[in-house]
Amino acid sequence: MIDFACKKFDINEIIKCSLGLSRADYKLFNFLLGSGEELTTSDISEKIGLDRTTVQKSVKSLVGKGVVVRLQENLDKGGYMFRYRIKDKELLKKQIISILTSWSAKAEEEIRRW
Amino acid sequence: MIDFACKKFDINEIIKCSLGLSRADYKLFNFLLGSGEELTTSDISEKIGLDRTTVQKSVKSLVGKGVVVRLQENLDKGGYMFRYRIKDKELLKKQIISILTSWSAKAEEEIRRW
Repeated sequence: MIDFACKKFDINEIIKCSLGLSRADYKLFNFLLGSGEELTTSDISEKIGLDRTTVQKSVKSLVGKGVVVRLQENLDKGGYMFRYRIKDKELLKKQIISILTSWSAKAEEEIRRW
Repeated sequence: MIDFACKKFDINEIIKCSLGLSRADYKLFNFLLGSGEELTTSDISEKIGLDRTTVQKSVKSLVGKGVVVRLQENLDKGGYMFRYRIKDKELLKKQIISILTSWSAKAEEEIRRW
């Protein structure tokens, strides 16, 4: 638990909010973090039991937030497919800590202007 | 307003919590901040309309928290009296910012251990 101004925050709240993830995005984020594999949206859809459209929407959002990497694989028969994997956890931590730091800097700024 | 993990905090909440002040302490704190004078508990009691026992209790607490300074005045006829004044606002800001920084450092630590 994290304390801020006499309120307690669960670490999941901090991660979810700092990365700007919806509840659905966060579910997928946690799944990809646990798996660590490079997966297609079909793989993910099968493994977590969500329909592919929902998975595609969340995966797109996670790529947009910079927490999931999209890998393009060219197929022998032409065309390509995408696989997705979570960003390295140390880089995710850096990303979250940098947001925490900016929250704290803004709070300090408010106190300075007080 | 201060944002932290998708919650909004009023600056008064931050000040009150960082200095560990009760609601009554915070009322007196704000009064002393606005006045800036060196006052006895009788003066304060009169000016804010709270009984002297309550004022004495809060003043003691504020001195203990290091936000109010107690000044001893020796009387000609022997004995002494105490006057109280709020700490310099720039020092109060420093004190609050140092608490903010420690909250943020603890949150960072949690993320690093994640």
